[in-house]
Amino acid sequence: MTYNDIVEQVKSKGSFLCIGLDTEYNKLPKHLMSEDDPIFTFNRMIIDATYDLVIAYKPNMAFYESLGADGWKSLEKTLRHIRSRDKNIYIIADAKRGDIGNTASQYARAFFETLDFDAVTVTPYMGEDSVSPFLSYKNKWVILLVLTSNKGASDFQMLETTSNQKIFEEVLFRSRQWGSNENMMYVVGATKSEMLSNIREIIPEHFLLVPGIGAQGGNLEEVVRYGFNENCGLIVNSSRNIIFASSGKDFAEKARHQALELKKEMSQTMSERHFI
Amino acid sequence: MTYNDIVEQVKSKGSFLCIGLDTEYNKLPKHLMSEDDPIFTFNRMIIDATYDLVIAYKPNMAFYESLGADGWKSLEKTLRHIRSRDKNIYIIADAKRGDIGNTASQYARAFFETLDFDAVTVTPYMGEDSVSPFLSYKNKWVILLVLTSNKGASDFQMLETTSNQKIFEEVLFRSRQWGSNENMMYVVGATKSEMLSNIREIIPEHFLLVPGIGAQGGNLEEVVRYGFNENCGLIVNSSRNIIFASSGKDFAEKARHQALELKKEMSQTMSERHFI
Repeated sequence: MTYNDIVEQVKSKGSFLCIGLDTEYNKLPKHLMSEDDPIFTFNRMIIDATYDLVIAYKPNMAFYESLGADGWKSLEKTLRHIRSRDKNIYIIADAKRGDIGNTASQYARAFFETLDFDAVTVTPYMGEDSVSPFLSYKNKWVILLVLTSNKGASDFQMLETTSNQKIFEEVLFRSRQWGSNENMMYVVGATKSEMLSNIREIIPEHFLLVPGIGAQGGNLEEVVRYGFNENCGLIVNSSRNIIFASSGKDFAEKARHQALELKKEMSQTMSERHFI
Repeated sequence: MTYNDIVEQVKSKGSFLCIGLDTEYNKLPKHLMSEDDPIFTFNRMIIDATYDLVIAYKPNMAFYESLGADGWKSLEKTLRHIRSRDKNIYIIADAKRGDIGNTASQYARAFFETLDFDAVTVTPYMGEDSVSPFLSYKNKWVILLVLTSNKGASDFQMLETTSNQKIFEEVLFRSRQWGSNENMMYVVGATKSEMLSNIREIIPEHFLLVPGIGAQGGNLEEVVRYGFNENCGLIVNSSRNIIFASSGKDFAEKARHQALELKKEMSQTMSERHFI
């Protein structure tokens, strides 16, 4: 998927919403437990109820890996189902991988070939050669962690170097030379929206994947104020607030309701900016 | 597995060798390709040929994930086979995971419950709350990336902060308070042995997992000179140089030969230090 494909999708749907498929087995509605594959059934119903409102889905690998080979199969079925509903949807593996070259190549193969993802989240600690193997795939994307939404983000990401840059800024300055805005995006937590202006100065054109709206306390209006660029440049993720909005038989309907509220807010803000 | 269990195993086997099961499908000996599960057959034969020489095995998750659900099953069988050969062997998931709290808990479940690993490698970029969920399991271990053996290690790990510490030193200073030498180890690449003295000053008692011997150019003698402590404190890993020593029918025999050479060197150095 290309940069322009994503921008076109944002415009045509009036949305820059991503739903995080953090499908935690223990939180599934009880009535699904008799299904052959409760994880896939849940995902399928969430997808059917929301695919017209979103531009992206983001399965979080941990929730599938915790179920072993069965979880992997549920994930494969989920990806095929998304593609069958709308082949233009951008699918992100939230995997936060990062390893040396020959291992990174194997991860790239896992996510871009064995599984049909468009993008994978990658952690920067091991530097350029841990990221570049993912960038050798045409129309596939690295989404690099920069500034995360959790408390521990302050442990290392906010440390200041002797060049008077914070570590997350060093990550931006260096990594923007590894790829381009056509194959790299950055993760910036919504709880750090006050930092978005700084970040936009360093990478004006890249898309940002912004988690932390909702359950983690991030605010959509602030994210847009500081992060929106001339091509939108934002993919805002919400997970638990949407997929676990209800634990009853109406879970998919309630998920749609939550997604629609966010999508409306997104449409409105893009309309005010004459982007759509 | 406890700290003392590991020390006892080092003493009784006269070895601190770990074999990395980076079992790359395309590098398997051709004659195994007709097997039902070539990956598992390869691993089984490597394990049978080496388990008396090693204290640990370290499957690298990327090589199994790249094969999807089938790879996951090969991995499960490999873990069971190691346990059946020697229940005291320490098994490390080389996964380099790192994510926010509720996701980290799912990864911990994946590696410590769904799969029966003793330890998992974790990346520090997201800080304390991305590591602590792994530390809540009794007798399970986090092995935190500190200073890796690849070229990209210099991109961020070696940056200096305004407190005159390198980032990898900041990781050591902070993280040593998150757990203890009873549930944390650190990854320090063998190609960085000149840094081991510094590291030993900050964490004198922790075990270090040292990759990079052999294929990546690290030197065992230097690692021991700077990294050995009163309880050995080293687990030295070799992967490709052992498991792919031959691509013929004698691959397991050649793997044993390579492992035995390293084990002898380890026994000798421990004997010279009157540790065994």
